[in-house]
Amino acid sequence: MKNLFMAKMTSFSQTTNEDVCETIIALEKSALEKWNQGDPSGYLDLSADEVVYFDPFTEKRLDGLEALKKYYEAIKGQVHVSKYEMLNPKVQAVNEMAVLTFNLFSYEGDKVNKWNCTEVYLLEKSGQWKIIQTHWSFIRPDLK
Amino acid sequence: MKNLFMAKMTSFSQTTNEDVCETIIALEKSALEKWNQGDPSGYLDLSADEVVYFDPFTEKRLDGLEALKKYYEAIKGQVHVSKYEMLNPKVQAVNEMAVLTFNLFSYEGDKVNKWNCTEVYLLEKSGQWKIIQTHWSFIRPDLK
Repeated sequence: MKNLFMAKMTSFSQTTNEDVCETIIALEKSALEKWNQGDPSGYLDLSADEVVYFDPFTEKRLDGLEALKKYYEAIKGQVHVSKYEMLNPKVQAVNEMAVLTFNLFSYEGDKVNKWNCTEVYLLEKSGQWKIIQTHWSFIRPDLK
Repeated sequence: MKNLFMAKMTSFSQTTNEDVCETIIALEKSALEKWNQGDPSGYLDLSADEVVYFDPFTEKRLDGLEALKKYYEAIKGQVHVSKYEMLNPKVQAVNEMAVLTFNLFSYEGDKVNKWNCTEVYLLEKSGQWKIIQTHWSFIRPDLK
């Protein structure tokens, strides 16, 4: 599993630091690596009750964790990614909110899917970062 | 011009309020309405120096306002949207950062383009909200 750590941190507050960047990227990779084995539980555990969600197969924005759970239920066991590259992950953060953006290459055998991704994380009062917004889209879907 | 205001606000802080929601949506609509006439200056003026950007035509994430200016230069005058519907805009905010998500139907004559959109706004020290992250993608690109 290729594991790139070319992260760039943009901090808008003196109290945010490199640790936030590393924490957010580690949370994302942990959920993604489960996802790649057909297991959506990592993303579901990481998502807040109020999460909103877009991907190339949704007809409109999905609102709330219950809607996301129902949606992911049908995908369980369908994904088999053998290798991934998370390209240029970047975290832009203030104290309680952080935006993670990256491109992702996901390999399934000879096939590669190329993605744009935006995750917005909120620092909950418990001290846990949770995803409140996910947006997945294909890079250049016209060329797919 | 259809102008829907079915906004829902999710506030994670006692100091954020309905005003933030209305402010953010008004900023977005103002930039979008210029865009619809082929003028990208609204979005460029609203974007921070450190903005990151995805759309269905970019090969990878664009980083920084200069890159976005260069990219938009080629599109100037190409867009002629006669009507739009911003569907279910939602703002999730803490004091200094806000996420706006919505679906957008853009009509050019008989043709309609259907979009997912995520904008992340940062409250700058000047008191001005600026976009630090934009993600546009097509709804169900496989059906286009």
